[in-house]
Amino acid sequence: MDFFNLVTVDEGRTKMLQVFKDYNFGTEEISLINSTNRILSASIISKENVPEFNRSTVDGYAIKSSDSHGASESMPTFLSLMGEVKMGENAETRISSGEATYVPTGGMIPAGADAVIMIENVEKLDDSTLLIYKPLSYGENIILKGDDIKEGEKIIDKGKRLTPQDIGVLASLGLQSIKVYKKPRFFIISTGDEIVDIDVEPALGKIRDINSYSLFSLIQNLGGEVVGRTIVQDNFGLLRDCVDKALDISDIVLISGGSSVGTRDYTSKVIDSFNGKGVFVHGVSIKPGKPTIIGEGKGKAIFGLPGHPVSSIIIFKVFVEHFINKLIDIKENQNKTTAIMDFNFPSSPGRETYQMVKIIEREGKTYATPVFGKSGMISLLSKSDGYIIIEPQEEGIYKGEERDIYLL
Amino acid sequence: MDFFNLVTVDEGRTKMLQVFKDYNFGTEEISLINSTNRILSASIISKENVPEFNRSTVDGYAIKSSDSHGASESMPTFLSLMGEVKMGENAETRISSGEATYVPTGGMIPAGADAVIMIENVEKLDDSTLLIYKPLSYGENIILKGDDIKEGEKIIDKGKRLTPQDIGVLASLGLQSIKVYKKPRFFIISTGDEIVDIDVEPALGKIRDINSYSLFSLIQNLGGEVVGRTIVQDNFGLLRDCVDKALDISDIVLISGGSSVGTRDYTSKVIDSFNGKGVFVHGVSIKPGKPTIIGEGKGKAIFGLPGHPVSSIIIFKVFVEHFINKLIDIKENQNKTTAIMDFNFPSSPGRETYQMVKIIEREGKTYATPVFGKSGMISLLSKSDGYIIIEPQEEGIYKGEERDIYLL
Repeated sequence: MDFFNLVTVDEGRTKMLQVFKDYNFGTEEISLINSTNRILSASIISKENVPEFNRSTVDGYAIKSSDSHGASESMPTFLSLMGEVKMGENAETRISSGEATYVPTGGMIPAGADAVIMIENVEKLDDSTLLIYKPLSYGENIILKGDDIKEGEKIIDKGKRLTPQDIGVLASLGLQSIKVYKKPRFFIISTGDEIVDIDVEPALGKIRDINSYSLFSLIQNLGGEVVGRTIVQDNFGLLRDCVDKALDISDIVLISGGSSVGTRDYTSKVIDSFNGKGVFVHGVSIKPGKPTIIGEGKGKAIFGLPGHPVSSIIIFKVFVEHFINKLIDIKENQNKTTAIMDFNFPSSPGRETYQMVKIIEREGKTYATPVFGKSGMISLLSKSDGYIIIEPQEEGIYKGEERDIYLL
Repeated sequence: MDFFNLVTVDEGRTKMLQVFKDYNFGTEEISLINSTNRILSASIISKENVPEFNRSTVDGYAIKSSDSHGASESMPTFLSLMGEVKMGENAETRISSGEATYVPTGGMIPAGADAVIMIENVEKLDDSTLLIYKPLSYGENIILKGDDIKEGEKIIDKGKRLTPQDIGVLASLGLQSIKVYKKPRFFIISTGDEIVDIDVEPALGKIRDINSYSLFSLIQNLGGEVVGRTIVQDNFGLLRDCVDKALDISDIVLISGGSSVGTRDYTSKVIDSFNGKGVFVHGVSIKPGKPTIIGEGKGKAIFGLPGHPVSSIIIFKVFVEHFINKLIDIKENQNKTTAIMDFNFPSSPGRETYQMVKIIEREGKTYATPVFGKSGMISLLSKSDGYIIIEPQEEGIYKGEERDIYLL
């Protein structure tokens, strides 16, 4: 099979998002404690003020700030002590001019008071008299009701992948359960007469299934769920039966191709055999990963990934991850960093080139050095921290340039 | 309680690692498919060669390279076709000079052959004759046995957090199960008379438990396990009972302090009440996070974290995460990026200062802008992508400087 209609990465992505523009992974309600790294499916609007009462930010005495004007180290002001506010309790006293009440950090400010003087700046003369040595401004050392979060305020946007900080904010609003997108369900099929699973000792000429393991792991890190995983031989009927069942129970089917021409042929014929658009991307001008196939059958997305382990990971990141991120509209900073290139590297003009790199810290600077090897080598994988992208119109990269590193 | 003996971050870390130098989280054997993000407890040495046989990297014909010398577009060389090697099968033929055998990508190279000519560079004259138009060098388009991974070679170091790439490499070696460190077990205790859990409507003066939710999430992201979580009032006896039980079932107890002086007092007295070293770090010259406590009881580590949500997260990252990473000797690039500072910011001399920032992409460049707010504000959290560290001897940071951003 030849690839007559190579598309660019951008064209491939656009086609894919166009075909699946109405794709819907669904939503579910889960408990807050289990929501780390899940994707919010509805923006969070606060139903209350945080804090719900005026709080002290220090250990000190709540007063009327006007009473402190003129106070100094040499000329303290005298105030009457009016008991104390206990931590976690409603402040039932009311402060009038000339009065002060002890309030701990986080404690509620009694009515009438508008500032808190820190314990470092006062002296207790006796049980009923307080000397204050410093003037305070209005609102000093107080967080006012709603100062932090206001009722009706939008707190977290739909599409956010929830971080530990977000979980804390949602707890502060008393949200015990929240709405998130369901985990996209994947089915992974490895094809190829040469592939055996890792619990089988491979006969000479056979090799172990690698890609479905790294894909499984990539899917977990992406927040997806693997509902099935199997190995199928290069046989149209067997592969079609398997894809048919996979389409029924998953959102996305990944066919990790053997690297031979025969396997690629079967994959595209099988995709075309279902009701639907069939194969609509058939080869991409990307290096590595040219023999990439994207299609649709029974309303579901099917990706034919190249057989080489490195290509398989790159194409997953470039297309499958992009698919999920765009359809769910995930808002997050991409997991990337920058580094100084440690090498000159020519690229293939007209093809978007992905080069695996290792990150090295040297003299306080971050460098990236390429991980080279023959096509299909597995050991490249564990030596790589991420990859750089060289655009089709670029001629390559130059030593000393600073570039983005997309972390794996 | 005052903090008479503030230590620096480095001093605190050194003390902590000294006290717990023999701490051991234990190891366990788990299935490869479940090992994403787990920490390898023993380096992986390959017991075999990868590939186990000489493989072709292209679709083409296996030949003796010497037969191709002198071949060109205008002057092809004629070879005798000797059948083909099927994908996944043992190559039983043997190539002699003047012969060629078809081999698919990934297929086994027959004995006698030392190069593979790509199908693009040949022409089949008839069923038994092949014309080749290009000279090949020895070993061209072949991955030799052991070229990728050699028997006895160290493949992945102990202490590595397993990535999708690593999982692929381990699958290629046929490792169905691997040895990893057990997940560190945490018990989270929130203290403070003002704290209620999120399923309770807080009375005026009370606030909801935030920190144990963000800590729970941080622990999950770090690869730990939370074995228990509870809220305890400011009462020596109640807190001691709770910590006592927590120490028996966990590796690390986190006491998320209320922000009041009273709570901090109880925490340190409780830690000192067990057999062991008691409190050995009592206050750190860090901003925020000064009232940090680290101690030992019943042989386990106990961290007293500050009550402010931001401080609590920072201290978890600076001490607890460091503790795990150093004791397990985790080898990984820290999750950081660089950005151009969008602001001038003075720091507190003599204290290591952590400032939360938001990352902004503008005109192809990455900027960091500070997230400010009053002490203890919760809304700061979800606006922050990470933090910058300002060293004690620095006076602050300057707009336009490029600095490391530690991602949350």
